[in-house]
Amino acid sequence: MTPAKAYGAQSDQSGLAPLNIERRELRPDDVAIQIDYCGVCHTDIHFVQNDWGMTQYPLVPGHEIVGRVSAVGDQVTGFRPGDVVGVGCMVDACRECEPCQHGLEQYCLEGPTLTYNGQDRRDGSITFGGYSESVVVSDRFVVRVPEALDPAAAAPLLCAGITTYSPLRHYGVQAGHKVGVIGMGGLGHMGIKFARAIGAEVTVFTRSEAKVSEARAQGAHHVVVSSDEEQMQAAAGYFDYMLDTVPVQHDLNPYLSALKYDGTHILVGLIEPIEPPVHGGSLIFGRRVLAGSLIGGMPETQEVLDFCADHDIACDVEMLDIRNINEAYERVKKGDVKYRFVIDMETLRNTAD
Amino acid sequence: MTPAKAYGAQSDQSGLAPLNIERRELRPDDVAIQIDYCGVCHTDIHFVQNDWGMTQYPLVPGHEIVGRVSAVGDQVTGFRPGDVVGVGCMVDACRECEPCQHGLEQYCLEGPTLTYNGQDRRDGSITFGGYSESVVVSDRFVVRVPEALDPAAAAPLLCAGITTYSPLRHYGVQAGHKVGVIGMGGLGHMGIKFARAIGAEVTVFTRSEAKVSEARAQGAHHVVVSSDEEQMQAAAGYFDYMLDTVPVQHDLNPYLSALKYDGTHILVGLIEPIEPPVHGGSLIFGRRVLAGSLIGGMPETQEVLDFCADHDIACDVEMLDIRNINEAYERVKKGDVKYRFVIDMETLRNTAD
Repeated sequence: MTPAKAYGAQSDQSGLAPLNIERRELRPDDVAIQIDYCGVCHTDIHFVQNDWGMTQYPLVPGHEIVGRVSAVGDQVTGFRPGDVVGVGCMVDACRECEPCQHGLEQYCLEGPTLTYNGQDRRDGSITFGGYSESVVVSDRFVVRVPEALDPAAAAPLLCAGITTYSPLRHYGVQAGHKVGVIGMGGLGHMGIKFARAIGAEVTVFTRSEAKVSEARAQGAHHVVVSSDEEQMQAAAGYFDYMLDTVPVQHDLNPYLSALKYDGTHILVGLIEPIEPPVHGGSLIFGRRVLAGSLIGGMPETQEVLDFCADHDIACDVEMLDIRNINEAYERVKKGDVKYRFVIDMETLRNTAD
Repeated sequence: MTPAKAYGAQSDQSGLAPLNIERRELRPDDVAIQIDYCGVCHTDIHFVQNDWGMTQYPLVPGHEIVGRVSAVGDQVTGFRPGDVVGVGCMVDACRECEPCQHGLEQYCLEGPTLTYNGQDRRDGSITFGGYSESVVVSDRFVVRVPEALDPAAAAPLLCAGITTYSPLRHYGVQAGHKVGVIGMGGLGHMGIKFARAIGAEVTVFTRSEAKVSEARAQGAHHVVVSSDEEQMQAAAGYFDYMLDTVPVQHDLNPYLSALKYDGTHILVGLIEPIEPPVHGGSLIFGRRVLAGSLIGGMPETQEVLDFCADHDIACDVEMLDIRNINEAYERVKKGDVKYRFVIDMETLRNTAD
């Protein structure tokens, strides 16, 4: 085992503090990675606080990992020491079920092994995430970060990026389509960039007038202030797609009304019961679709990185000293970050043991 | 104007009684039809009772019409006197919007003109439906009933049939797919026949053990008693599609759990708010889709009749004397019909004036 510095939580009240963990010895298919950057996802906060009642402590969060390969197992042929690589939300899956065979490991019928708070399929240990100086991951779950990408700004592509890219591809967004993006946080601002790069006409829905110019600066062709009923009425029946990145309960019905017939409303954030309830008639009259999507599989996670390199797309990030992680969490909770914190792992390496 | 015997409601309390109405003089594109049969749809009952607050009285229901052409307007080339024809839920639409141009008149951006309780687009009169000895309809909204079909059993294809056929086609059900059919009334029993004819493996979900053998007799390969939690658990993750014909509020979450990843739950009956609420996570984890569908456009309404002729499919009907229509409504409300009442319009013609 190899010791590694990390930041972790000891309880739902503890917040994050330095923690020494161990990384496993290399298995034949393993890639050892020296972590340079790790994005801060709202999911990390939910796990630290045990909001979903499934956290096992100590918890080391982080699933938007970019770093350099430091060593590889005997059977690894796709990576070499020095390669710049990424790891996202998953580090393993059964690899045998139908979705795994289709490269949709996120829908593994046994459930994928999550990058943190997951249970390693071979030794039963609990996985530790990317708020750490290193990690060891099976090669199937490691992606290559193209040279053209700034590695810090690439880190959030491993979750926020793939989560918004995958449904736009899967549900068939094409050039000329009218796409609404609901919410403009870490996910939403990536959604704008991807939809625009695909050639869609992009409209951002935001509750606040104050974000209108920001949305335009992000590339939105149009902005609708969703709290303004007149603007919402004017949008009725206009959109082919809605990319809904809002992770808390909200009324979907006004957005369904803004879809054309045959339009698709894609949920990527809202995992709770949908209240107020969706009207069945909103789907039936207009043959509309309410759809979900979860991150993306490994081939598509590689694809999104390559797409970003080809289209000069990056996440807007604010670099973070890991010693300020607890304050950063408070700012994330208030939506006070444009648009993703990324931990500079040098600030962890430089801490005293 | 031509006088016509009919049955209609005068108020939400009146029930149905004989009523004399008039049918318009033929316009150049009109087809005059002597009605032989008209199916009884649950929607008729909702309109008679003004359940949706939009009924204009007097109301003559009926939108599953089969009859013979008695005369045609000057410009009609597709139909001749004596032809056996059908009329479904719509008798007009704007004909110019994108959905109309795609033969999806049911999604007409101005709203289609409904066969009854609609407003005629040319003279502003309120449309009267098929509980009548005759009707006059623009040729675009008249379909041909193939000779191979029993015209009485064909009548419900114009609503119950197309409503279940269209979404199976649109959402891509193919041979080998696993399709669940929820509810086994007028719509559900047609869904079983269509899914089976397409080559799918069909499972009926029914609340009652008593309907199991009936479901098998209808062609279901499997039956799940939905009130039996063990059976529902055993069905988890199995289905490619659910065709949900239930028109009242019910919990969709157990059915969403029974879908495979990438599975589609199709609503054709539930137009109310969906309560208990759907869990966003049921859609996101598994990339599942909740979809709606409304009847079908005119080209597909013709297609379903032809499909039934080709595949020897008919609706199971109980013939009805129109003088017993109010009793029949009570039986429909209790689900006591296998599976659709069809009014024999001879019983109307034979009534005293």
